[in-house]
Amino acid sequence: MCGDPDASGRREVTRILGIDPGTRVMGYGVLEERNGDLTLVDYGVLTAPSRDDVIQRLRHLYRGTMEVIARHRPDVLAIEEPFVGTYVQAALAIGRAQAIAILAAANENIPVFAYTPAQVKQRVANYGGSGKAQIQEMVRLQLGMASVPEPNDAADALAVAICHCCESRLAALLRQGRK
Amino acid sequence: MCGDPDASGRREVTRILGIDPGTRVMGYGVLEERNGDLTLVDYGVLTAPSRDDVIQRLRHLYRGTMEVIARHRPDVLAIEEPFVGTYVQAALAIGRAQAIAILAAANENIPVFAYTPAQVKQRVANYGGSGKAQIQEMVRLQLGMASVPEPNDAADALAVAICHCCESRLAALLRQGRK
Repeated sequence: MCGDPDASGRREVTRILGIDPGTRVMGYGVLEERNGDLTLVDYGVLTAPSRDDVIQRLRHLYRGTMEVIARHRPDVLAIEEPFVGTYVQAALAIGRAQAIAILAAANENIPVFAYTPAQVKQRVANYGGSGKAQIQEMVRLQLGMASVPEPNDAADALAVAICHCCESRLAALLRQGRK
Repeated sequence: MCGDPDASGRREVTRILGIDPGTRVMGYGVLEERNGDLTLVDYGVLTAPSRDDVIQRLRHLYRGTMEVIARHRPDVLAIEEPFVGTYVQAALAIGRAQAIAILAAANENIPVFAYTPAQVKQRVANYGGSGKAQIQEMVRLQLGMASVPEPNDAADALAVAICHCCESRLAALLRQGRK
């Protein structure tokens, strides 16, 4: 659950694909949101063969992401804008991984929203400094799952999808309030 | 000119698209190679509107790259693997820009080859430490152009395409020598 239903009660279902970008493992999570209620649709990871070079890995994950998009036909895509730290090689990989998700969505004209790790933590666990385990547990609770989603990459993808629901809900309430 | 013709004389024309990746300006250059002879086909730059956010810019350059691919139908794509330096923000942008070229090629199953700046300089100007102006002049001479190709991003794209021709030519000669 993420906020209250619209006053009109006529809001349609929105399908959100959350992506945790990586160039070896790409987490994905699919949710449906209707009037603030969240329903889990699917989650998992795409893994690139480790024997492949970087070009082959990008192509592999790109095709996998396009398959997930074709299978679930999301209305929006939400990605995490990770903290790049101080390692240039890590930043290079993050840039490539983000582009996979952004460009796979571009093929189907799906809008993309990016959130920082702090935004995701704030929206999912109400605290920007929450740890991995706490986020996983909050994802489990918010989606009514029997056990925490695994692996971590899939849990992170679900968390960014939940974050997008909350952010767009708050934005809609603000727009309504201004009218 | 890049090496001698094959002994068989039956080598076909290869069309090479060189890309100089950037998230604001993307240089491209198209060459045809037949028996070691290079012919200039086209060159130019794709520019992303500076008012756009990074997601919009990536999508814009991705669509532009796909249009160049559709127009010129290259057999291979050659990109520069730039020196990332020590700035993480620059590395992030380079990663995104490379992915645009790699994934646009993936849509059409076009093989991609990456070359370091030192490789490009070595092959185009026979010296790994050559400067920008020297590379531009060598591109002009190798392609028989009346004036140096501009802007720099387009010249760099032509240089990486020339580099690919030389590298694949040398690889073919090595294979032939081993038989």
